[in-house]
Amino acid sequence: MKKIIILLFVFLFVNSSFSQIIESPNKNFVLTFKLTDLGEPFYKLQFKGKDVIKDSRLGLELKDKFPLTKDFLIEGIDTITVDETWEPVWGEVKKIRNYYKEMLVKLVQPVVKNRRMYIRFRLFNDGLGFRYEFPEQRDMTYFTVTDEKTEFALTGNHKTFWIPGDYETNEYAYTTSKLSEVDATKGLTVNEIYARTVIGKNYVQTPLMMKTDDGLYINIHEAAQVNYPAMNLKIDYDKFVLTSTLVPDAYGNKAYLQTPDKTPWRTIIVSEKAGDILTSRIILNLNEPCKIKDVSWIKPVKYIGIWWEMHVGTHTWNYSNVSNIKLNNVNWNELPPNETHGATTVRAKKYIDFAAKHGFYGVLIEGWNVGWEDWFGNWKEEVFDFVTPYPDFDVVELQKYAAKKGVKIIMHHETSASVTNYERRMDTAYRFMKKYGYDAVKTGYVGRIIPRGEYHDGQWMSNHYVRVAEKTAQYRIMLDAHEPTRPTGLHRTYPNWLACEAARGNEYNAWSIGNAPEHETILPFTRLMGGPMDYTPGIFQIKLDRWVPDKKECIHTTLTKQLALYVTLYSPFQMAADYPEAYEERMDAFQFIKDVPVDWDDTKVLEAEPGDYLTIARKAKNKDEWYIGGITDENARDSFIKLDFLTPNKQYIATIYKDAPDGHYDLNPMVYKIETQKVDSNTELKVHLVCGGGYAISIKPAKK
Amino acid sequence: MKKIIILLFVFLFVNSSFSQIIESPNKNFVLTFKLTDLGEPFYKLQFKGKDVIKDSRLGLELKDKFPLTKDFLIEGIDTITVDETWEPVWGEVKKIRNYYKEMLVKLVQPVVKNRRMYIRFRLFNDGLGFRYEFPEQRDMTYFTVTDEKTEFALTGNHKTFWIPGDYETNEYAYTTSKLSEVDATKGLTVNEIYARTVIGKNYVQTPLMMKTDDGLYINIHEAAQVNYPAMNLKIDYDKFVLTSTLVPDAYGNKAYLQTPDKTPWRTIIVSEKAGDILTSRIILNLNEPCKIKDVSWIKPVKYIGIWWEMHVGTHTWNYSNVSNIKLNNVNWNELPPNETHGATTVRAKKYIDFAAKHGFYGVLIEGWNVGWEDWFGNWKEEVFDFVTPYPDFDVVELQKYAAKKGVKIIMHHETSASVTNYERRMDTAYRFMKKYGYDAVKTGYVGRIIPRGEYHDGQWMSNHYVRVAEKTAQYRIMLDAHEPTRPTGLHRTYPNWLACEAARGNEYNAWSIGNAPEHETILPFTRLMGGPMDYTPGIFQIKLDRWVPDKKECIHTTLTKQLALYVTLYSPFQMAADYPEAYEERMDAFQFIKDVPVDWDDTKVLEAEPGDYLTIARKAKNKDEWYIGGITDENARDSFIKLDFLTPNKQYIATIYKDAPDGHYDLNPMVYKIETQKVDSNTELKVHLVCGGGYAISIKPAKK
Repeated sequence: MKKIIILLFVFLFVNSSFSQIIESPNKNFVLTFKLTDLGEPFYKLQFKGKDVIKDSRLGLELKDKFPLTKDFLIEGIDTITVDETWEPVWGEVKKIRNYYKEMLVKLVQPVVKNRRMYIRFRLFNDGLGFRYEFPEQRDMTYFTVTDEKTEFALTGNHKTFWIPGDYETNEYAYTTSKLSEVDATKGLTVNEIYARTVIGKNYVQTPLMMKTDDGLYINIHEAAQVNYPAMNLKIDYDKFVLTSTLVPDAYGNKAYLQTPDKTPWRTIIVSEKAGDILTSRIILNLNEPCKIKDVSWIKPVKYIGIWWEMHVGTHTWNYSNVSNIKLNNVNWNELPPNETHGATTVRAKKYIDFAAKHGFYGVLIEGWNVGWEDWFGNWKEEVFDFVTPYPDFDVVELQKYAAKKGVKIIMHHETSASVTNYERRMDTAYRFMKKYGYDAVKTGYVGRIIPRGEYHDGQWMSNHYVRVAEKTAQYRIMLDAHEPTRPTGLHRTYPNWLACEAARGNEYNAWSIGNAPEHETILPFTRLMGGPMDYTPGIFQIKLDRWVPDKKECIHTTLTKQLALYVTLYSPFQMAADYPEAYEERMDAFQFIKDVPVDWDDTKVLEAEPGDYLTIARKAKNKDEWYIGGITDENARDSFIKLDFLTPNKQYIATIYKDAPDGHYDLNPMVYKIETQKVDSNTELKVHLVCGGGYAISIKPAKK
Repeated sequence: MKKIIILLFVFLFVNSSFSQIIESPNKNFVLTFKLTDLGEPFYKLQFKGKDVIKDSRLGLELKDKFPLTKDFLIEGIDTITVDETWEPVWGEVKKIRNYYKEMLVKLVQPVVKNRRMYIRFRLFNDGLGFRYEFPEQRDMTYFTVTDEKTEFALTGNHKTFWIPGDYETNEYAYTTSKLSEVDATKGLTVNEIYARTVIGKNYVQTPLMMKTDDGLYINIHEAAQVNYPAMNLKIDYDKFVLTSTLVPDAYGNKAYLQTPDKTPWRTIIVSEKAGDILTSRIILNLNEPCKIKDVSWIKPVKYIGIWWEMHVGTHTWNYSNVSNIKLNNVNWNELPPNETHGATTVRAKKYIDFAAKHGFYGVLIEGWNVGWEDWFGNWKEEVFDFVTPYPDFDVVELQKYAAKKGVKIIMHHETSASVTNYERRMDTAYRFMKKYGYDAVKTGYVGRIIPRGEYHDGQWMSNHYVRVAEKTAQYRIMLDAHEPTRPTGLHRTYPNWLACEAARGNEYNAWSIGNAPEHETILPFTRLMGGPMDYTPGIFQIKLDRWVPDKKECIHTTLTKQLALYVTLYSPFQMAADYPEAYEERMDAFQFIKDVPVDWDDTKVLEAEPGDYLTIARKAKNKDEWYIGGITDENARDSFIKLDFLTPNKQYIATIYKDAPDGHYDLNPMVYKIETQKVDSNTELKVHLVCGGGYAISIKPAKK
């Protein structure tokens, strides 16, 4: 680590306005911190000489205490430049440079016994992070945040890709509109989400992706959401000022803090090219380094699962069709089986065979454990015990079978959002997992939270998600969380926390109006800014009436766009989500899923425009192989890419999986062509994407 | 068990009013159930031909569902007579007769798909119990109770001994007034209780003790509060109708139920003599039988503790005087000790010595574990871990020392009402206990509940208390819960749950205006109706300035009244609460505490008037020894008692511990006389009690 330390110490107990600037290492950004005559803190962010964030208020309001918004003086300002490089345990790139200029503004409020609050700014070459810090001090120990007043004063009525501000869920479809046109209370798909608490018309969630009329891209989010609720943003329709709005608890309080303490980082990433938003590592850099000492057991993996068939409807999570279960009062062997139960020993073995044959790490099996008969929508506390299998699921037998085949079964802990119940049973559940050979768990939080009064995105749940990451790490268990708060880069600190859902996944295509063709072109600029998503790509059987006659729902992509998602939607926990039968019928296309890595040395965004298209190339970890994914929205387009990232003077074989010319996501989605050709670093490729289409390319060194 | 079954089956699908009566086995009570023309259920209770409860409404209101209050028809009525006798694991009597006439009223609501609700009445020779039952049925599985409409329509403006209706606490002083004069918002001692949520002016808690102008005693409470919030009572000042008011959750909901389900029993005990209220076993009889198979490890015990000195103020729970602790971020060995820490190894050994010398089961040690520096009033979640001792408390050394002396250390788990934290750590904490030889735990719930939004007396916490009882039973741990909801006889079902605080204990005398001399004459008729109280009697050093100069607070009884409480306030977990030094100076009086049992064959209430006086005699379990306790309020009085319960023609020696003639609870509280005399079943004794005084007698067979 190389640290260039410049200490600037100013001790200004004068009652007048004050301002101080820092520049980003590359001088592109200027951050101005100001204190008004009234001692109110403000900041401003400029990019290449123009305002990106105009003067914006900083501060917090507290319960029964003088607010942390005014009457501040400067106690001191420390600046420092840090330039270091670190290696993530897994990820999109092998090494990450953490290069920033930091300004720590030490504020003091003489009117309340010199109460102190610090604001730490880190200005990177691609944007800004800042947070509030509350140093240990005699007269402030415990305090309750009732409101955060952080503003992001935008320079105009930007175009934005938004989902409604909500305390509970992030599984909305995106809307593209001007800021002034946001109406979070309207939403075509709102009834598809059970547990939701929309804040109001002019509230949106982060990561919020915007584009100015000048073509500048701006992304606002946060990093390291620990012991603090998620931030939503309130839009001022006239002034285009966004204000932080925190998720409350039962009493309307936002966060209970204890000095020394801090908020998450607020992040503003800015670029002239859309693709540079995606390669920004600001959010990861602002998270704490890995807390797990031995990471040898953490492995990015691909998996299949007994899962899609439940979403499609040919099988069920529940074993019986009774609708009223008391967990401790049922003889499961006496319940009438419904004959549609998905997680049977027999079916599990077939999946294990398939996984073993095609080199998958594991098989996720949902619905293996008792309680699914009435798990949903009843706000039931004692809903699952996480250790009792259904009578037709033989844990011991399957442990032996999977071990013999060299495949792992992936545990599923749906909590039904009954988190008190899960917390009581977590240790027992994880011990059960280790006893029976499970090394990864997918958690789920569908429904309204218990403890009642808490929300999915509040402080208490924020602590829960981290607690699960820490506890699974203690048991050497890898974690994939569904329906949590949206990620903020915590996988740097807890790399066993491979992925989250926390957005509208592929599953919505199975039982709702689904995800529009543009959906996957927006996700990387929004949800994925905080971390990998378990989107569950790879559906080959686009039309679902193949499985359920008359079923109208379907996937809104072509087949090869599903392949492209393995590259464009990065995850170290990547599913091949379709029925094995669907793959067995198209082994040629399936080859790409078998080949594509889940861990990378390098990542290049070749083409990008949120809502329209995205083309990404990635280099396999420790291998001279490249994989490219290109997708488009509902419009056909041609992708032009240069392979100049390949090693010069070296021959490669590219295998191109692309839409057939007559393809169309809705009219003819399952036609594709696979071509191979020799390529090198001088090659330029043109690939046609049909409406809602996409393509995938694997590039491997030619055999000599 | 003897069951006389009479089945009366009426299937009346007619839309007209209906009524049905049953009589108690002794014919003293008549219970009438009525259905109005509108299908509204009512009940009425008569005692010896006069109304005790006039026509009173029954039913519940539900969230988003047609209410369970009207449009009912009778589907059937089953009656049965039960006469059985059972033996409690420990208690006030050796055998308990459970003798009642039951009427199960099966109601059906044709307007909502024949939804069914049953009301089960059990009419005993001393009162009534009834509850609502929700049988398993197709069209009602999950439902949410928003209000219980149960009424108790009294016949007049009775005198009542009440504490304010409150969602959080029962640690109020009692007020004696007419029902119409109740004002729960006024209370001298209200500021002494941190976590309290008074419902409103006209709300009181149960057990509610009343006396009619005709001299009839009426007690209203509940039995078996499981998976349901506590009942408070709303008073109609004009009509003297009490209405059930349940403790809500964060959303204002009262209970989440799932068929088959049931409410707790609502109990009405009625008698012409006050003492008969105390000997009623209705509440125990209405609880489920013992669920613990092997009860051999459950033992009623007496104990001492490192405890009173913290209330008095000579010692502290906390080890250091820092005020800002993060549990996982402190090197306890580096914290500066405050030199007042009570729970040190050295002090613990002295207490162990004292307990061993005087035959006590154990020593409660509070403040042994880290976290007390800022445990209170901060609504802190990670407040205690229950397994880390302070640096000056050597768990291993003390385990050895206590074992050598044949004494048990009693564990203390103060939770600070951070119940989520406790639930996460319970298993680890109980394993720690068993590893280090602890067999009993005192829990505490001081403060505002976490999960925030829940209250001490709500459904969620009700389930927590039972969960702790069940889990401690699994670990063979005896339980004493402080600051829980008030008991409802669940110690029949979980006899390891020896006692609760759940009322204003002796500790209030150490740091508040304390407990008025009448306090202990009311407790048996109110709080103790539901089960034993860990009142912590036995304070010999009545004036506390002996320990802390200028300390004004003191105990508002004489010394011998403290002895009497061992008999009048039954508990199988009974403390000798004073400093050992206080006992060492008065070994003659201390002899009674050493002698008095905590488990009984029989109990006789010799004299009783709530608020005024109480004299109880009890026969030791499996021994021909009797113990008598007599107490008075602020007024002096003479107690006249006949010893006709002694075995005829047998000589006994009575040792009488009584107030000296010049004694007075305030002016001269620590003077007493100890006399012995021969007694037999013909003996009549007159004992004088001074103002705030009391006496205790042990009666043992004379040696031949």
